Amino acid sequence: MAEADHSGPRNLANGKTRIDFQTEPARYRHWKLAVDGDIATLTMDVDEKGALFEGYELKLNSYDLGVDIELADAIERLRFEHPQVRAVVLRSGKPRVFSAGANIRMLAGATHAHKVNFCKFTNETRNGIEDFAENSGVVTICAINGTAAGGGYELALAADHILLVDDGSSAVSLPELPLLAVLPGTGGLTRVADKRKVRRDHADVFCTTEEGVKGKRAVEWRLVDEVVPGSKFDDTIMARAREFAGNSNGASRQGIQLTPLTRTIAADAAEYSSLSVEFNRAARLATITVRGPQTPPPASADAMQAQGAAFWPLRLARELDDAILNIRLNELDIAAIVFKSSGDPAAVLACEKFLDANKDHWLSRQIRNLWKRVLKRVDLTSRSLVTLIEPGSCFAGTELAFASDRSYMLIGTREGDNKPPAAIALSDANFGPYPMSNGLTRLACRFLANPADVDAAKAERATMLDAERAQQLGLITFALDDIDWDDEVRVFLEERASFSPDALTGMEANLRFAGPETMESKIFARLTAWQNWIFQRPNAIGEEGALKRYGTGQKPVFDTKRV
Amino acid sequence: MAEADHSGPRNLANGKTRIDFQTEPARYRHWKLAVDGDIATLTMDVDEKGALFEGYELKLNSYDLGVDIELADAIERLRFEHPQVRAVVLRSGKPRVFSAGANIRMLAGATHAHKVNFCKFTNETRNGIEDFAENSGVVTICAINGTAAGGGYELALAADHILLVDDGSSAVSLPELPLLAVLPGTGGLTRVADKRKVRRDHADVFCTTEEGVKGKRAVEWRLVDEVVPGSKFDDTIMARAREFAGNSNGASRQGIQLTPLTRTIAADAAEYSSLSVEFNRAARLATITVRGPQTPPPASADAMQAQGAAFWPLRLARELDDAILNIRLNELDIAAIVFKSSGDPAAVLACEKFLDANKDHWLSRQIRNLWKRVLKRVDLTSRSLVTLIEPGSCFAGTELAFASDRSYMLIGTREGDNKPPAAIALSDANFGPYPMSNGLTRLACRFLANPADVDAAKAERATMLDAERAQQLGLITFALDDIDWDDEVRVFLEERASFSPDALTGMEANLRFAGPETMESKIFARLTAWQNWIFQRPNAIGEEGALKRYGTGQKPVFDTKRV
Repeated sequence: MAEADHSGPRNLANGKTRIDFQTEPARYRHWKLAVDGDIATLTMDVDEKGALFEGYELKLNSYDLGVDIELADAIERLRFEHPQVRAVVLRSGKPRVFSAGANIRMLAGATHAHKVNFCKFTNETRNGIEDFAENSGVVTICAINGTAAGGGYELALAADHILLVDDGSSAVSLPELPLLAVLPGTGGLTRVADKRKVRRDHADVFCTTEEGVKGKRAVEWRLVDEVVPGSKFDDTIMARAREFAGNSNGASRQGIQLTPLTRTIAADAAEYSSLSVEFNRAARLATITVRGPQTPPPASADAMQAQGAAFWPLRLARELDDAILNIRLNELDIAAIVFKSSGDPAAVLACEKFLDANKDHWLSRQIRNLWKRVLKRVDLTSRSLVTLIEPGSCFAGTELAFASDRSYMLIGTREGDNKPPAAIALSDANFGPYPMSNGLTRLACRFLANPADVDAAKAERATMLDAERAQQLGLITFALDDIDWDDEVRVFLEERASFSPDALTGMEANLRFAGPETMESKIFARLTAWQNWIFQRPNAIGEEGALKRYGTGQKPVFDTKRV
Repeated sequence: MAEADHSGPRNLANGKTRIDFQTEPARYRHWKLAVDGDIATLTMDVDEKGALFEGYELKLNSYDLGVDIELADAIERLRFEHPQVRAVVLRSGKPRVFSAGANIRMLAGATHAHKVNFCKFTNETRNGIEDFAENSGVVTICAINGTAAGGGYELALAADHILLVDDGSSAVSLPELPLLAVLPGTGGLTRVADKRKVRRDHADVFCTTEEGVKGKRAVEWRLVDEVVPGSKFDDTIMARAREFAGNSNGASRQGIQLTPLTRTIAADAAEYSSLSVEFNRAARLATITVRGPQTPPPASADAMQAQGAAFWPLRLARELDDAILNIRLNELDIAAIVFKSSGDPAAVLACEKFLDANKDHWLSRQIRNLWKRVLKRVDLTSRSLVTLIEPGSCFAGTELAFASDRSYMLIGTREGDNKPPAAIALSDANFGPYPMSNGLTRLACRFLANPADVDAAKAERATMLDAERAQQLGLITFALDDIDWDDEVRVFLEERASFSPDALTGMEANLRFAGPETMESKIFARLTAWQNWIFQRPNAIGEEGALKRYGTGQKPVFDTKRV
């Protein structure tokens, strides 16, 4: 891990004013993506001078959000541009070091909000790697050629198979607690306990041992899958990749190109090809208006492939993802995201039907997988989420209304407006392909008390439902007529913006996830919530705390009270 | 809710220097316990002047830890002293108010550690009420005769059936977020979502509406089970109690008396009849030495009943519970609890066997239920837990070693000591009756990776296992011989005390609970961790925060950044 820092929040490097989540392999500074037949190699070779913020260097393959944005992009490219790939090798481009983890100077100088959102994004990236194996059958092999400390080992934990070089010194470690008084918060503790299923006392020893665990013990304790002598390291990596790739039947698949988003960003708005974002900073609102497709679905899977990144559901998913991330990281003062839509619900349903009919086609599957992950990102966004369903909207088969904390639907028409009354429609998409991180569909989670309500909703698939019917079915929160609409919505949004942002974050994180927990949801609940608490504690971030004092030669001074 | 407070941490009332968890009905100041055949009535009638700390009054049936200690005691008395009871009515002794919830002045003036431990204890009490229904078939009916706000409604949520008077004004509410910028953290959010299964958008509206929900909507939204006109309120309560008590076949059961604990507390030690606690304040350690039974188990269930509270397993459970609670609330500087034992393992096993043979007897069942809850309390104690297994110890069939973060076992004998080598033994008690809050036995959780390891351990029940064998079976963390023992244990405990207390709390809360989550475990993970975070945030506890400003007429000022 690199040196600590003692200054305040930082400026973005290179005079930038916002964090951009869009990149492409030609612009990567920290990763190399190489594809050879059905095996891809992702090499981490962090450019020390390529930090996202001013004031620290990314030594020893340590990372910040900028590094992880490239990793997330690379995984996305593999999904869409290289569908023939069946195994991914994750390795380091630096000798004797895999990764020193999240950069400590970056962490020590970051605002609380940035630390929390940085961890959230990196967690989502790692969940995406696991989803790649689980839902696309693409196995990730992590080859640890030296130190894998903290976030470095946490990245390895996201892989399906971990090789560690057996050279008498290379070790995996989670030194966050002994060194920095924080947690391995990028899934580390949860993956050690729930994925690797390390025995709890071994995990206790491991997570309190600064130097980590190496060699045979690392295998015995289930921390890595195998240790390999240096002389056989490269051969073994490729043998495993070959083995996991199997007799690939996707080798002949042609990918599509993830072309750059069509996007213009102004001071109070962002315009994409399929959605608009409007910021009302005085009211602390961001309104995202999604536009339905302008054309019917393609005539065939081949035609879909020919449309590529221009195909409406894919385009919208990528644009929505970017819009949400922009709000999360760059627009901290926004209290609520309001979802609206405009377009023809029948056209949306036709698109959904097309995807469902072609669900065995790799591109259709990847588009749905992307939607699933974007919707999970929405669920985990710590802003109040509201859907407004008005005349002219096209909320059909989409999950945004059910991902929202509340939805309001207008009854009938608006005075002086000739748009037809608002209607929503359900489709098969609401009953399976887009589970939440707790494993339930949003409707199953919504109707936890009465599973029969899910069936009742299912029976109405593809029916256009007006406000009264939608309310009878429990699909919306409030149905309001034109007379009440403006006032009720305004009062609600004003009230929301008046509440404590922290309490809203905590409340929403609890109420959105009724029912079971999974490893993934545990990462964002049990682990993240504890880490956020610790990120506020003087023992970590105070002037005498461990995160501040790391690298100074001064020992931290702790308040010894256990809470 | 009562007025807010603006002062610092408080002194205990009446010149007390420690919080005592022992009480009895004759000493209650806040509750009345009345038993009539198979129906008990618990009446909350909080004495305004009876606060645990100086500086606030318990108006409107608001409560502090002292009030909850009496409630916990009353439930315990029902279990053991009144086993004929099949239904409990929870009601208020004050007109038009059920309970205003946790006292806000108490909260605003409490240390962070006290707030967190207060919530933990009250959560455990409410889980105990639910356990009473689930595992003893004793149903709790909550009769809300007026305002039930915040913690007042959270108490109701622990009941199996909630009646609300329908008088046009009485409402249930969770006003924590709008009024105080904190969460309903005594299980409120989790029980609304996971127990009452309130639809998430309704829950959102409910938890942000200061005045709460009343009448028909409270039933429709599943917040209460029925609303009853005032004129029929008392009759309906008793009718429901009668109905839930059913055709009681326990009416003739005789209880035992929970006699006061045999306990002497000195400056650096606490002595109980079956265990000793020794405080080494310099090393920040509490050593709890459990003593095995001195006599064989009773000859029959009748003989057990005749022994009553003196019966070793019951006595030990009550004493251990008291010792743990004392450390939690009164000994905040203690970093680690070290469990030791002394006695004859065969005598412990004989006792466990007796309980198992009589598992259908009400007293045996209640003793095991008590052990289950005490062990859960241990799991949830935010101190490092260590078991030292030495010659002369009697860790047989007990779960303490498996509840610990680590265990050390001495190989062979100690020089200059004639005690036989340490041995541990498993019993049926390790494989079922004492699940953790996540629903797994501690061994199932320990061996999550290889369920076959549970079977291998099970096959060795009642065999005395020496250190090497215990280690082979994965039952202990380290086996050490006499030469290494003192140094290794000392170095470990010194190191533990050197780490950040907060980071240890977070790490242990993650590593102890591998595997599934339940509603109960979600309360202590997702909900509590978020609440602890919020309890640290300036928006709640800062000088301009909502908790500090409540009741002053000044509005809180919030940092509007969403995290």
